[in-house]
Amino acid sequence: MSSLVLYNYFRSSTSYRVRIGLHFKNLDFEYKSVHLLKDGGEQHRAEYRQLNPIGGVPTLVHNGKPISQSMAILEYLEETFPQNRFFPKDIYTRAKVRQFCENINADIHPLQNLKVTQYLEKNLNISPEQKQQWLNNWISLGLQATERILENAAGQFCFGDEVTAADLLLVPQVFSAERFQIDLKPFPNIQRINLECLKLDAFQKAHPTRQPDYQA
Amino acid sequence: MSSLVLYNYFRSSTSYRVRIGLHFKNLDFEYKSVHLLKDGGEQHRAEYRQLNPIGGVPTLVHNGKPISQSMAILEYLEETFPQNRFFPKDIYTRAKVRQFCENINADIHPLQNLKVTQYLEKNLNISPEQKQQWLNNWISLGLQATERILENAAGQFCFGDEVTAADLLLVPQVFSAERFQIDLKPFPNIQRINLECLKLDAFQKAHPTRQPDYQA
Repeated sequence: MSSLVLYNYFRSSTSYRVRIGLHFKNLDFEYKSVHLLKDGGEQHRAEYRQLNPIGGVPTLVHNGKPISQSMAILEYLEETFPQNRFFPKDIYTRAKVRQFCENINADIHPLQNLKVTQYLEKNLNISPEQKQQWLNNWISLGLQATERILENAAGQFCFGDEVTAADLLLVPQVFSAERFQIDLKPFPNIQRINLECLKLDAFQKAHPTRQPDYQA
Repeated sequence: MSSLVLYNYFRSSTSYRVRIGLHFKNLDFEYKSVHLLKDGGEQHRAEYRQLNPIGGVPTLVHNGKPISQSMAILEYLEETFPQNRFFPKDIYTRAKVRQFCENINADIHPLQNLKVTQYLEKNLNISPEQKQQWLNNWISLGLQATERILENAAGQFCFGDEVTAADLLLVPQVFSAERFQIDLKPFPNIQRINLECLKLDAFQKAHPTRQPDYQA
């Protein structure tokens, strides 16, 4: 019997990616909430730092062994549970899917991250308008590049007609963009694929509003 | 005959990662410089944007097909050229190496990136002292987590006694940290492994000071 425990937070987009991956592969897992705001952030507690030295979410614990960083977790899930693959078999297409994922993981997401906007507010005293400009700038720039890739790559989903890791990254990024009130009208492919994914069971089960620690 | 062209910039740490990977696998490649500062940044030119929609470096072109994002490129190199592997064969160790890489790729590097410090200077008018505090904060926090991982994982290199992708990410991050005058004394494992790697031919050949577009 293999045991999977996911330490995560309903609203965290990196957590959301991994939840979709787990549901997409029909894997049962125990949901452990790590509240990023309560008591200064539960991710900073010493016992959680044992699992995740950088103090972020999510962390997946498989048979007692922890892995963090959503991209590393998704690759691990794919290698460990081969059903319902989300990385394409063709090496070049797989590289393009990873490239797409990293555009979100390493270029957009780190700049919208809670710890970064908290630093800007507390240490650089930025105004609410400056914070909104910061978010608009990085998210819109990143989504422009994403939209341009989709113009050529997309079918029903980001890469052709099968769900890939690209969709697992895109949908949580759209969720964040909506929460940050980014104008999505310039991105018709992104909007369409997001809605297409949200018809699927795995994406619905993983949605932030359906998690036990959800708060409006 | 397979042809490899690397669009990159001597000082870019993401470029440096990929150069180490190419040299580690003894692959010949054509070096194309993309100067990140000249004329407002050559990465923004329309012809380069065709290769890399997000306008960053590096981009590897293999037999005419472009791939960007350093992590996607390293995974592609590993899958395409199996000699001198840098991702461990064991699935869990491979996941931990990827996690280590992403701590640098998605947590440290995006916040020290040129486009981000340029935004802070131009749009938020931060002072040179505030810029230094920003860099100190994110790089030191990230390296603290990295050092803690190495206390358990390291041998001669980051993960045991073989070079892995973790080393390919660590050495360029140390190069950047030194350039940004971050105090590395609290990180003895990082310093030791960096020096150990720099004894190797692949790391020497990939060093920023050895590239054709190097400027002091």
